[in-house]
Amino acid sequence: MRIDLNADIGESFGAYTIGEDQALFRHITSANIACGFHAGDFNVIRETVKSAKDFGVAIGAHPGYPDLQGFGRRELQMTAREIYNCVVYQIGALKIFCDIHGVPLQHVKPHGALYNAAAEKSEIAEAIAEAVYDSIPEAYLFGLCNSELIRAGQKIGLKTASEAFADRRYTEEGRLCSRLLPDAVLKSFDDILGQVKEIVFNGRVKTQSGQWLTLQADTICFHGDGKNAALYSAEIRKVLEDAGVLVRSVGKPI
Amino acid sequence: MRIDLNADIGESFGAYTIGEDQALFRHITSANIACGFHAGDFNVIRETVKSAKDFGVAIGAHPGYPDLQGFGRRELQMTAREIYNCVVYQIGALKIFCDIHGVPLQHVKPHGALYNAAAEKSEIAEAIAEAVYDSIPEAYLFGLCNSELIRAGQKIGLKTASEAFADRRYTEEGRLCSRLLPDAVLKSFDDILGQVKEIVFNGRVKTQSGQWLTLQADTICFHGDGKNAALYSAEIRKVLEDAGVLVRSVGKPI
Amino acid sequence: MRIDLNADIGESFGAYTIGEDQALFRHITSANIACGFHAGDFNVIRETVKSAKDFGVAIGAHPGYPDLQGFGRRELQMTAREIYNCVVYQIGALKIFCDIHGVPLQHVKPHGALYNAAAEKSEIAEAIAEAVYDSIPEAYLFGLCNSELIRAGQKIGLKTASEAFADRRYTEEGRLCSRLLPDAVLKSFDDILGQVKEIVFNGRVKTQSGQWLTLQADTICFHGDGKNAALYSAEIRKVLEDAGVLVRSVGKPI
Amino acid sequence: MRIDLNADIGESFGAYTIGEDQALFRHITSANIACGFHAGDFNVIRETVKSAKDFGVAIGAHPGYPDLQGFGRRELQMTAREIYNCVVYQIGALKIFCDIHGVPLQHVKPHGALYNAAAEKSEIAEAIAEAVYDSIPEAYLFGLCNSELIRAGQKIGLKTASEAFADRRYTEEGRLCSRLLPDAVLKSFDDILGQVKEIVFNGRVKTQSGQWLTLQADTICFHGDGKNAALYSAEIRKVLEDAGVLVRSVGKPI
Repeated sequence: MRIDLNADIGESFGAYTIGEDQALFRHITSANIACGFHAGDFNVIRETVKSAKDFGVAIGAHPGYPDLQGFGRRELQMTAREIYNCVVYQIGALKIFCDIHGVPLQHVKPHGALYNAAAEKSEIAEAIAEAVYDSIPEAYLFGLCNSELIRAGQKIGLKTASEAFADRRYTEEGRLCSRLLPDAVLKSFDDILGQVKEIVFNGRVKTQSGQWLTLQADTICFHGDGKNAALYSAEIRKVLEDAGVLVRSVGKPI
Repeated sequence: MRIDLNADIGESFGAYTIGEDQALFRHITSANIACGFHAGDFNVIRETVKSAKDFGVAIGAHPGYPDLQGFGRRELQMTAREIYNCVVYQIGALKIFCDIHGVPLQHVKPHGALYNAAAEKSEIAEAIAEAVYDSIPEAYLFGLCNSELIRAGQKIGLKTASEAFADRRYTEEGRLCSRLLPDAVLKSFDDILGQVKEIVFNGRVKTQSGQWLTLQADTICFHGDGKNAALYSAEIRKVLEDAGVLVRSVGKPI
Repeated sequence: MRIDLNADIGESFGAYTIGEDQALFRHITSANIACGFHAGDFNVIRETVKSAKDFGVAIGAHPGYPDLQGFGRRELQMTAREIYNCVVYQIGALKIFCDIHGVPLQHVKPHGALYNAAAEKSEIAEAIAEAVYDSIPEAYLFGLCNSELIRAGQKIGLKTASEAFADRRYTEEGRLCSRLLPDAVLKSFDDILGQVKEIVFNGRVKTQSGQWLTLQADTICFHGDGKNAALYSAEIRKVLEDAGVLVRSVGKPI
Repeated sequence: MRIDLNADIGESFGAYTIGEDQALFRHITSANIACGFHAGDFNVIRETVKSAKDFGVAIGAHPGYPDLQGFGRRELQMTAREIYNCVVYQIGALKIFCDIHGVPLQHVKPHGALYNAAAEKSEIAEAIAEAVYDSIPEAYLFGLCNSELIRAGQKIGLKTASEAFADRRYTEEGRLCSRLLPDAVLKSFDDILGQVKEIVFNGRVKTQSGQWLTLQADTICFHGDGKNAALYSAEIRKVLEDAGVLVRSVGKPI
């Protein structure tokens, strides 16, 4: 058994600091680095790419809607063509820092509302997949398990990594419950660990109605801005490794 | 005799249109494409790269201060490190569109207040030169004739192109007169043509005090947002070519 | 018969100019001034308020989504509370310039996608009406004829002005056809004049399917960014006045 | 003896939280509320105005340069006219929330680089003083002791409050040492308490060279984003009150 552990990283902006990046880097295997639209800026990107390299964590671009105030978490009406351009731009901006520091760009994972829209809407999913394919055809596309995004990535010929969430509640349809709902995010360590174990060992997750949903995850997302994110991810990684799971980034050969 | 004619292009933003890009593309040989900070956006960039390719005009990145309201024309206090990051980011964002469309990124020319600061301040000039060198070492660095920026580019090992302005008044020190001054910009066609001819044929320009200033220009800048920009550049190009001058982008072999 | 003629004004931003404000001011009676979120900035606002005062045109706040790149024309997922805050902020920013120049703030008209959302969704309509009521209870609320916004304004105790559009195509439900559709905007002068005459003289408009829709308009909107906006509005105002219609801002006593 | 204790408040933005506002409100008497340009947004403003009212803390507008990434701490080249407009806009945006919640706007204090520029440059100081006078003539203008800003306020007829800083190092000229210098900010509680006591009891402060500088402060600034800001301000307020100092906002009658 093998799993990748990823987190959203590099979401600070100017004087604003968010997340426990340095601590998280010790426990994750893939970092989704914000590209300056929903979070992050050119200074943060540079430092984050350097840190990821130092920690040996694989780097992914984490493009979002151009909406800093909303942190990329609210939907913005954009055409497929605009989304394509928006994603290409952000990939390019991050990729050049990777090139300069001599590290590959392993994957692309859209952020927040863009991620959710890409799970549901084939037109948006295809625009993102095309943007990734045109920009870095060798990259992995990260998307929600069984989503339109994964389908679009496979269709265009990208490698894909199906993603599950350590601390997000699922609907019966396998989507993430809206953050506007009170129980959208699991808070206790036991609940989070329990969800991760079901995902990794049993290929399933319990939905909001209590039913089991089948999913095959290649990578599990930890939220870097959650409280105790670093602590929880450290503990969970240890549990997995003690159980014999190979915790490694998706792009790394065995 | 040989000269490159360049203009700032792709400065529209969202619903806002500026400049006569389509008309200018017919007459210039190098386009400085805004990268989304002082002007331009991801949609404009894509369309502009495609147009430049269609017209056979060489493409350059035109990074500016992150200041849309000021159109990059007002100085913003940033450290050399921040300027380096800021320029790398913008180059990366433009370069990926060039890569996708299979056209090279010929040059980098900083915009507005950043251009002026780089003419004067060696620390800023070196930060920009380093950003270009780290991002695309084969690119030309465009800078004001006899500026710190040209010196910094040569020092780090970049190819450079010294630039003169068709319609900007010069100080005795060879700098551009501030746009806040009433006579900073030449307006009549005869004045502009006269200045271009002095630059190309006599390697000199008349300063605001009426003295001659020596300069050796590889490229001449036309302002795309000026009235009659396309018309003037067409006329001037014709005058130059009729006089036997080879009008060609700096990066193109003879 | 009496009608108010309004237009969106003050939508320039920094170096970007849009619309023919100075020309339009001669023909309209109410100006919807952008407040710096979807368009406009603090310099543009000041100059626009002064011009409106000079021309004797009544001033309204024209708040939009915080989305300059989208010109406020794309929907952005915001809660009712956020929309309330967003509208209050923009009203306050414009109102203080009115106070300084000694002119009243006659009305508030939301812009673009916010206007359309407020026509359909009672929660958004009520948030806007509450924002206006709390900020300037004596102001008129402008909204689409028969819209949720007009209902919300009446419910909270605001004066309202029902608005029709000179050059926008209507659906059978009395909404504006999406700008993404090819025929959403009337282009010929005859079509626009015809629509205005039907609105003013017959209280009706022809929808996209060719049926008549009844509406009672207090004010008619001309688009300031359309080609020939000033010319058309001048002609149409003349036609109306020649037919004995009193063309006057809604807030002005007879 | 009487002193006002102020702090910069409401500097969070979207998902980004900064400062310990709720804790600080218990100890300060005047709050400088960010207006959405260098920090803060319309949602944060609303909540902050409500909190200030609940805590009985006097409210001031805290306008800054339009530069979120730089947190208003880097100078931006703007004309006096633009600064006037920029400050008026921000005052208006904050004031309307005060009006809605029935609390007065006691004062205006420019932020960061704008504050420093206004201390030195009479043209900028006068633009700000004029903006305040035109917007809320009854308000206090906060400025550095012995600064151009205080002079400009007095000249135009505003009430002024001279400000000293609890934790900032002073130059011999009575200006704040640049934050780029290592010792610009006092960090130990003893140093900060010592500086406050010298200011309040002896009307002087020790400069970076060790000399005494005379100043008469009406209000002392605590930095809300500093570590232990709430703790330090609580302790210091207690020390002052135990020594018989009346700690009260400048606008409050005795």
